[in-house]
Amino acid sequence: MIQPGPLNLITDVAGLRIGNAQDHNIKTGCTVLTANQPFVAGVHVMGGAPGTRETELLAPDRLVQQVDALVLSGGSAFGLDASSGVADAMRFAGRGFQVAGKYVPIVPAAILFDLANGGDKGWAENPYKSLGKTAFEHADEYFELGTIGAGAGATTATFKGGLGSASAVLENGITVGALVAVNALGSATVGDSRHFWAAPFEIGDEFGGLGPARQFAPTKMPKTKLTAGANTTIAIIATDANLTQAQATRVATAAHDGMARALMPAHTPFDGDLVFAAATGQNAAPITDIDIMHIGHAAATCLARAIARGVYHATPSDADFFPCWATS
Amino acid sequence: MIQPGPLNLITDVAGLRIGNAQDHNIKTGCTVLTANQPFVAGVHVMGGAPGTRETELLAPDRLVQQVDALVLSGGSAFGLDASSGVADAMRFAGRGFQVAGKYVPIVPAAILFDLANGGDKGWAENPYKSLGKTAFEHADEYFELGTIGAGAGATTATFKGGLGSASAVLENGITVGALVAVNALGSATVGDSRHFWAAPFEIGDEFGGLGPARQFAPTKMPKTKLTAGANTTIAIIATDANLTQAQATRVATAAHDGMARALMPAHTPFDGDLVFAAATGQNAAPITDIDIMHIGHAAATCLARAIARGVYHATPSDADFFPCWATS
Repeated sequence: MIQPGPLNLITDVAGLRIGNAQDHNIKTGCTVLTANQPFVAGVHVMGGAPGTRETELLAPDRLVQQVDALVLSGGSAFGLDASSGVADAMRFAGRGFQVAGKYVPIVPAAILFDLANGGDKGWAENPYKSLGKTAFEHADEYFELGTIGAGAGATTATFKGGLGSASAVLENGITVGALVAVNALGSATVGDSRHFWAAPFEIGDEFGGLGPARQFAPTKMPKTKLTAGANTTIAIIATDANLTQAQATRVATAAHDGMARALMPAHTPFDGDLVFAAATGQNAAPITDIDIMHIGHAAATCLARAIARGVYHATPSDADFFPCWATS
Repeated sequence: MIQPGPLNLITDVAGLRIGNAQDHNIKTGCTVLTANQPFVAGVHVMGGAPGTRETELLAPDRLVQQVDALVLSGGSAFGLDASSGVADAMRFAGRGFQVAGKYVPIVPAAILFDLANGGDKGWAENPYKSLGKTAFEHADEYFELGTIGAGAGATTATFKGGLGSASAVLENGITVGALVAVNALGSATVGDSRHFWAAPFEIGDEFGGLGPARQFAPTKMPKTKLTAGANTTIAIIATDANLTQAQATRVATAAHDGMARALMPAHTPFDGDLVFAAATGQNAAPITDIDIMHIGHAAATCLARAIARGVYHATPSDADFFPCWATS
């Protein structure tokens, strides 16, 4: 039996902490995943409009095999500065990859587009560096979902998006968790209904318990939020399994299936859809390819559940363009 | 409204022909997609165990931008010779990329593993070159689905796999089609039921009309056919749209969502899951990024439907290890 961990959050992976910071006036924010130790990370990009920082080093042949934090941020390319704020904060803690006696914090990041969501975008100075620093300082095991962090300004084609998370403990004791900022061009719900595409994967009533839709319209193109570029779903999968960088990359690839199952459509030219995978290695058991299959499947289903939970937990703000799932 | 084309086959894309050849004693075969003219092609690989030929040239920066045929084959790495048989047959027709006054047929190929499916694998000479040649010679607009071609020896975790196809005509008149040899580690059906995962996308009763499953077991790992390497789902998406090589690559990427939605799990370390995309350009209308979004979504849903149809149309053979969906 696969069961959620005690928090049903990515932080059920022991040692991980999540920090959120947001500005509800701007309607944006960022989310930081960090830990006391560096961790292995991989990435797989499937969207047509990604915005990233430090993803080139996330390959098995590159020198750096572990990172210090991962950042998801609103703000489009401006939001990449959140990563800079995190790195500055980590520098004083002596964290980072050691080069010539110096420590360089490695903080890969991905952004989503929330510059056209009704918020006040008239800032004179890029706010994301400061948001990143604040998010890092508030990193904790427990965190809220919905209209917070990188999900603070997120939307989908039908309802407000948001920050989602979910976890699973496999039969062999390995924990897998997902974190996602849902800002899809497509929709997490079926047609005009409130039923989530992710319903077949819902555990208990973690996103409302409505169950799967009964009616589908296969000959109809789903609703889309066709503001070119104003989209993107970005996620982090984490596990305590002792993965190599290459294995983490494979898990990131498999996890994209969760986006495909929870969002319709996904991976469009206007979505920068991307999944990071993080592995702490705290569970030291040797990992086989069969384990990677199980972890990859759990990653995909956790991500699908996390996407639905991000939309489910969104709360109203001023000047919203989309209704909230819970209050509509 | 999105509707299937007149055949509900990939050959609804005008000018394309499909040829199948199989050996029911060996329980294997191959499938060739060809046309009277070269066509643009792209590829996206997401499985952990791919077997391919000529995929390196399928990138926007490579010299060759068009191919002469695409091959899906059983036989694991031995099946790559099917492509050689096709190229030999095309050579005499003067087909191919012109280099120094010679014509070199460009025939990318992908294989699936069907070497452990109960067939007689005692051949002394690799049979795939001959199968490839036969398949090419029989290429036609109409073809059968199920236990034929590259799907002749295919299996899934629960039922026999097979060769599937489906098509869609978009509102703007662009046609999209999918062809797939379904040999997944996972299952195309939900739990112990006969309901297809692809049911939300079924048009009419093209794969039985049972509708979506009512019961799901999210805390249970789905059944898998855990013979390491004995898997792989390979597909071709085709359209008459006038795509560049880069646009075809993006469509191939988006199409993988159809595998994610129709197979559980998909994209595992033991599946060489791969999608080719082919574009004939016969529909000369200019293509925008919005068109690519629609074509990508249609590709994903056609592929999901084609996967279900491949399993739905499978027929019994001697020494089968798995039951057929239609007769169980």
